[in-house]
Amino acid sequence: MTLSCHTQLAQAQQGIITPQMQAVADSEFREAEFIRQGVAAGTIVIPANIRHCNLVPMGIGRQLKTKINANIGTSSLSSCPHQELQKLQAAVKYGADTVMDLSTGANLEHTRGAIIAAATVPIGTVPIYELACRANDDQDIDFSTEAILAVIRSQAEQGVDYMTIHAGIRPVQLPAACQRKLRIVSRGGALIARYMAKTGRDNPFYDCFDRILEICAQYDVTLSLGDGMRPGCLADASDEAQFAELAQLGQLGRRCRQAGVQVMIEGPGHIPLQQIQMNMLREQELCDDAPFYILGPVVMDCAPGYDHITSAIGATLGAWHGAAMLCYVTPKEHLGLPNAADVRDGVMAYKIAAHAADIAKGIPHAQDRDDAISQARAEFDWDKQFELALDPDKARELRAESLQERNLPASAPGEKFCTMCGPKLCSMRVSREI
Amino acid sequence: MTLSCHTQLAQAQQGIITPQMQAVADSEFREAEFIRQGVAAGTIVIPANIRHCNLVPMGIGRQLKTKINANIGTSSLSSCPHQELQKLQAAVKYGADTVMDLSTGANLEHTRGAIIAAATVPIGTVPIYELACRANDDQDIDFSTEAILAVIRSQAEQGVDYMTIHAGIRPVQLPAACQRKLRIVSRGGALIARYMAKTGRDNPFYDCFDRILEICAQYDVTLSLGDGMRPGCLADASDEAQFAELAQLGQLGRRCRQAGVQVMIEGPGHIPLQQIQMNMLREQELCDDAPFYILGPVVMDCAPGYDHITSAIGATLGAWHGAAMLCYVTPKEHLGLPNAADVRDGVMAYKIAAHAADIAKGIPHAQDRDDAISQARAEFDWDKQFELALDPDKARELRAESLQERNLPASAPGEKFCTMCGPKLCSMRVSREI
Repeated sequence: MTLSCHTQLAQAQQGIITPQMQAVADSEFREAEFIRQGVAAGTIVIPANIRHCNLVPMGIGRQLKTKINANIGTSSLSSCPHQELQKLQAAVKYGADTVMDLSTGANLEHTRGAIIAAATVPIGTVPIYELACRANDDQDIDFSTEAILAVIRSQAEQGVDYMTIHAGIRPVQLPAACQRKLRIVSRGGALIARYMAKTGRDNPFYDCFDRILEICAQYDVTLSLGDGMRPGCLADASDEAQFAELAQLGQLGRRCRQAGVQVMIEGPGHIPLQQIQMNMLREQELCDDAPFYILGPVVMDCAPGYDHITSAIGATLGAWHGAAMLCYVTPKEHLGLPNAADVRDGVMAYKIAAHAADIAKGIPHAQDRDDAISQARAEFDWDKQFELALDPDKARELRAESLQERNLPASAPGEKFCTMCGPKLCSMRVSREI
Repeated sequence: MTLSCHTQLAQAQQGIITPQMQAVADSEFREAEFIRQGVAAGTIVIPANIRHCNLVPMGIGRQLKTKINANIGTSSLSSCPHQELQKLQAAVKYGADTVMDLSTGANLEHTRGAIIAAATVPIGTVPIYELACRANDDQDIDFSTEAILAVIRSQAEQGVDYMTIHAGIRPVQLPAACQRKLRIVSRGGALIARYMAKTGRDNPFYDCFDRILEICAQYDVTLSLGDGMRPGCLADASDEAQFAELAQLGQLGRRCRQAGVQVMIEGPGHIPLQQIQMNMLREQELCDDAPFYILGPVVMDCAPGYDHITSAIGATLGAWHGAAMLCYVTPKEHLGLPNAADVRDGVMAYKIAAHAADIAKGIPHAQDRDDAISQARAEFDWDKQFELALDPDKARELRAESLQERNLPASAPGEKFCTMCGPKLCSMRVSREI
């Protein structure tokens, strides 16, 4: 690490408690020194690009509250920046802790700039998407070191807080990937794999990894080492390709920390229930307990339209057993690009997964909200129940719908029953008379 | 057991493989003798009232596919039999294995008769609801043995396949229940507890339990021993009241089997993630591995509007660790009575929970459907993907919505990309070129 490195990691290692570490400590009910030690050890990251001025700092690590990320972004089929800002708003309103801009449509830079300017949460990106979009055809992507560094530098200058870089996928892993049912389902992974297969060269992000680290150290961009080999179906889960790449990511993670660059590791994917704990433990072993940032995992392949649920189940187990951040999946997964309603559904499913895991892990004060809403329930205090709900609008909406279907007044404050049982057989009322 | 007892249990114990056992064996990919042994031991039940003529037999047990139940039924605020038949249809269409009619509105018997006549799945009820509805006021419920047996007999004659009887809640458990945040949230449990507290008498269902068994043996009604003490919030989970009742249910279960009556045990409730496995194991110990029929469990209290998801997470863990049947929870839980759309959402969340657990448990052929849909995905065979989806309508609907939002033709067969990535960056297409 150069002496001029001022990343959160470098400062933590010098024993400095930064304002960002203090803010994280406050929001996590922890001592600042606990946070500093975690950042110094690399088990906590605080993605905070020095150019992202209106950022509210947050920390990601197995010992902290489980965080969730929502993906937004245009595609070649739909690229309206206004729509993306709406999705950003929906994601943050419902509780996303970070947002990734995965745009691949027109006007990438403009869209990203607008998102960063509007966001108080860390913004992540996948620079290979911009590389791909600059090409006329995905067969002609410029994978030169210059092109790669130019994209990463311009995004870092814009204020991107963390970037997914697929530097861990290597030629030696390809034969195993080709035996899979679904080969490679990561877009970045697939493009790099094809490039390596066609040219006989190594991964171009791996080749210039030290120079990527220099840029990241300068702006304090946190690296999120992408899992190009994440399994796309149960049949491919926990296979040789996946774990060979994970070991490689562990090595790259050590290089990041040596360069003063904060780093997370990305994880699967489609994994059956009974393999999730093993996957979490393996990351902790191979990657020195660097924050594990997982997608789902989706625990079955056959429920398109409901993958916010199939994956929230996997995400709950993942977080319980050690994942630090959960990348949401929306109901549109496998089918299409999410709209604002899908974003809400995805974020809520993941708030639930994170909260369930935090209770199970004994995260400080995790159960306070549950105890308070149960008290309000015991007191028939509907307003307080709504207030304490993870999604107050939804709770109000469903209760209003139910009252309307029963021809009851839309607002009947103080009624001592819910519309499930009706006033006659309300267990809550009856059991107070014991 | 009397010699004239012809329940599935009695016949299994005599070494007879009934047509119902054979049907269950066929649908479970098991030997008929395996099913017979399970029924004889009481670890499998086949709810099949001899009067329910158009029933398609199904089995419930820890070693079989995980089953799910959907609750429907009128309340005093809404009692339209036509609506209930719609809910029945929705429940079965989306995959409910049994349906409980929890009606407490007007014309109970008529509604129930229509439901049984229309149903090929087992129908369950909670007879105390009918008792309560016959009273003018819930303070004046007739808990005499005559009244109880009259309701149970008339429901048995109508063809009800299984009944929830809260015979395990006893006076000695009440002090512990009164220390809870939410006391008793089971409607049956609350009514019985108040009756016991007011009169100083024991549980009236416990008092006439042998006579209830006689009726059940005659019609082969399976008993589902209700958990009046199920916890209604995390703060009350796994407490003394809950486990004292569970031990009592275990004793009652032995009396059922001695009388030739098939029996399941009902379980919680609101339970945090980290206590679910312990709860499943305790039931197996205390209740001789009788099929455990659980509600949720809901793993947090603070997400009203999303309790189909909070509870599907708990249900997945419950089933993985031994629950045999999952009682669904809809998004309206804690807020109102579900409508047909809520029934669909609830059933689908539970189909997902059951399926995820079956894969984890290694139930024969559980993963076949996933492997087939993944193959279809690899081949861009959209029609086959929809066909194999747990809810084909939903998958088609979301894809159509997405295509429409992108101004693409509503039906574009053969397109080699999903609308998530668009044609330019489709990982599936790219990775086939490696």
